[in-house]
Amino acid sequence: MPPPRPLPSVLLFGLIPVAAWFVVRPFIEPVPLPALYTSIGFSIFALLATLYIIPAVGPAFIKANLKGIDLLKTDKTPVPESQGLVCAAVYILFLILFIPFAFSDSISNSTKKTREGISVIEFPHHQLSVYLSSLLSLLIATLLGFLDDVFDIRWRHKIPIPIIASIPLLMVYYAERGNTHVVVPIPLRFLFGTLVNLGPLYYIYMSLLSTFATNSFNILAGINGSEVSQALIIAISVILNDLLYLPWPLDFRIPLHLLGNRADVEVGGVWSAGMAYGSQELVERHLFSLYFMLPMVAVCAGFMYHNWYPARAFPGDTLCYVTGMAFAVVGIQAHFSKTLLLFFIPQIFNFLLSCPQLFGLVPCPRHRVPRIDHDTNLLHPSKALFMRPPTNLSTLILKTLSALGLTQLTTHPSNGTILEANNLTILNFFLLRLGPMNEKRLVQVLMCSQVAGSMFAFTVRYGLAGLVYDGNRR
Amino acid sequence: MPPPRPLPSVLLFGLIPVAAWFVVRPFIEPVPLPALYTSIGFSIFALLATLYIIPAVGPAFIKANLKGIDLLKTDKTPVPESQGLVCAAVYILFLILFIPFAFSDSISNSTKKTREGISVIEFPHHQLSVYLSSLLSLLIATLLGFLDDVFDIRWRHKIPIPIIASIPLLMVYYAERGNTHVVVPIPLRFLFGTLVNLGPLYYIYMSLLSTFATNSFNILAGINGSEVSQALIIAISVILNDLLYLPWPLDFRIPLHLLGNRADVEVGGVWSAGMAYGSQELVERHLFSLYFMLPMVAVCAGFMYHNWYPARAFPGDTLCYVTGMAFAVVGIQAHFSKTLLLFFIPQIFNFLLSCPQLFGLVPCPRHRVPRIDHDTNLLHPSKALFMRPPTNLSTLILKTLSALGLTQLTTHPSNGTILEANNLTILNFFLLRLGPMNEKRLVQVLMCSQVAGSMFAFTVRYGLAGLVYDGNRR
Repeated sequence: MPPPRPLPSVLLFGLIPVAAWFVVRPFIEPVPLPALYTSIGFSIFALLATLYIIPAVGPAFIKANLKGIDLLKTDKTPVPESQGLVCAAVYILFLILFIPFAFSDSISNSTKKTREGISVIEFPHHQLSVYLSSLLSLLIATLLGFLDDVFDIRWRHKIPIPIIASIPLLMVYYAERGNTHVVVPIPLRFLFGTLVNLGPLYYIYMSLLSTFATNSFNILAGINGSEVSQALIIAISVILNDLLYLPWPLDFRIPLHLLGNRADVEVGGVWSAGMAYGSQELVERHLFSLYFMLPMVAVCAGFMYHNWYPARAFPGDTLCYVTGMAFAVVGIQAHFSKTLLLFFIPQIFNFLLSCPQLFGLVPCPRHRVPRIDHDTNLLHPSKALFMRPPTNLSTLILKTLSALGLTQLTTHPSNGTILEANNLTILNFFLLRLGPMNEKRLVQVLMCSQVAGSMFAFTVRYGLAGLVYDGNRR
Repeated sequence: MPPPRPLPSVLLFGLIPVAAWFVVRPFIEPVPLPALYTSIGFSIFALLATLYIIPAVGPAFIKANLKGIDLLKTDKTPVPESQGLVCAAVYILFLILFIPFAFSDSISNSTKKTREGISVIEFPHHQLSVYLSSLLSLLIATLLGFLDDVFDIRWRHKIPIPIIASIPLLMVYYAERGNTHVVVPIPLRFLFGTLVNLGPLYYIYMSLLSTFATNSFNILAGINGSEVSQALIIAISVILNDLLYLPWPLDFRIPLHLLGNRADVEVGGVWSAGMAYGSQELVERHLFSLYFMLPMVAVCAGFMYHNWYPARAFPGDTLCYVTGMAFAVVGIQAHFSKTLLLFFIPQIFNFLLSCPQLFGLVPCPRHRVPRIDHDTNLLHPSKALFMRPPTNLSTLILKTLSALGLTQLTTHPSNGTILEANNLTILNFFLLRLGPMNEKRLVQVLMCSQVAGSMFAFTVRYGLAGLVYDGNRR
């Protein structure tokens, strides 16, 4: 096992007081949204816990045969695998410890009274059930991800696994008689009306969302830092989106017009409640999302420190499962699944590009990671070899993809039969378009594409969505 | 791997219609307690699932290095280990699928209306939160149990692990402002009054209960069927206790006087609500307990089929963790932890007997299972060897235990120093008192002691408890 990356102790001694301040602050004097302070404080503790636990438990992982060889390195000493389990455990533990802060009326009572000016406080039982069912789904995703690592389930078999993890979400959603209506885009309203009840289809949509979020991370993997950086950037994007809906004090407002927001969307808004226009429900939904995303950013950042090139820890499937499920949870429970999907643009692109290989039209090797040239330390696109000539359909698809510049084909010099094709992943696509580069640079390119995707997503959500949706959003 | 035990297919074809009938029954015509029918139906499905999945996944467990050698057999082919994971997974999955049946007002609404004669139905948010937090604790126990199996945590380190699993219970209990009062026994009321608020001590009590329930199974292990049979008999005892509180129709009542019930306890009771005396809260608590215990009996019975002598599957720590936590959950949430502890008499005896070894006063070998004589196939008590002479305290304790007939000492013929002592477990105690016997007989003796313990518990609870408690029970 390679030596773990050293941790500057200034980090520990610097961050503990900051975290403690955030946790203690709401007890000193009433603040608006006290639970948010706690969440930030807990997230800093979660960051520290991840940073320190990952290297500490590495040898135990190696000993338990949870180890992997880095395919793209000359150094073949095993690296601890499945350490996403540590992230998941820290993440879920802090979410559980957070329960009394978010839901106990004894803690949050006084503030609520002053904020809303009413004296009858309903205990937020409904929100607690939703929160607990989300935790259940996350925990099942963790367990299944870890089982996947231990039992090494074949990828075709594991695609439906996230559906099992989404069952608690669906069950509680059903038991609570959750809303299954969706707002119809304006151009289609003459057909369906303003609202349409999807009924059982809504449940299928929810479980497919968790399946997609999980598997789309899982197939965009293979280079140091790729899995965790996707999760990190998407989580930050979700947080930025949530912040738009919080009741900010006036001197701390986000300049919405920079995000391409159309002027008319702001009309009639209650400024002190951001984009929520004073709707308590919208504020609560986005607070819920923040409670899940802040510690997610923390554990991802902590893990990334050890997973960054050259990786000292591997995430395993566990990390993809738990992060994917966390995004599905907030998208579903806080009702912004369409916005969430916009943050998955690189994943959607990678999934669509991968389809010919996933569905067996093009041969799919065990690993599709780029190929390394150890002399130059540069990565090149890896190739799928055709053992027999491709069918007409496969040829058509590959020629189209090649014409679009998405893959590169090696054809027989005389009859033009396809012999080889670049593996259909976004990583190989980057290498094809931008030329060979080293592994660190490639993950940076991937991260840039994720950031660019999020910026595009914000433009679409707050700029263009006004064209097909009115203010009646869910 | 030894061949799995064959399953008669009549079981499958016979039980599926029965289970389906229980699930469908409440939809055909209104029945009292419709969710109980569903629970029974689901439990039968859980039994079948456990019976069939355990042998099916055995090879995958072996392949993933989750295997063990049976210490008490001549056959040294590895047996799949940690298959309690299958029980836990089936158990929790059915508990999750059960959520809409127990809590959806759309399903249970009509019946409730007719039963209580009121039209405003409150959605049972509180119960749903409690149910979900219980599932979280069970799931964490499963995950930790499995991690224990994979990482092989040393026993001294793993004693506090169940405390982590009890955190969701405690958090939700706190967030819901759960009751921390206990009823004081009559002889002590002159000191403390009728009710005493334990406050934080109550939370410590709850986490210690889960730690005790889990670890007491874990240290009473080592022979085929020992772990699962304890869980099975305790679960059946809890179910019998719960049934006393249900609103039975008159022609299906349990003869309470046979259990040593004093006549005066029945006075004033509403017969149609059993021992609950018409208290809706007591009925609901014991229904909650039944929802957890019925599938527990099912998965334990299914597992026992494969774990019975000679074992074709080993439970691993996972089974102890999940069953122990399930008992802690029902004891805490349904408020009968004192009654529950009465069902743990053999475990308490074994724990107290083990204390000198657990706390290092007497040497504790890695395994304390009885020793087998392969010629006769009989088990004999195993011994702990003193490498150096015992301290005065150890000598005193061992001499006392020996005088009580709980252990057997080998002393130095001249100076009387203790050289060896029988390992201090209930299994070795049985072998000492009843003579050598084979493994199957020993587990049967253990089961008989568990049944006897439960019968004694019922006598104490419904016979003698009236001496120190009045009707004001929790």
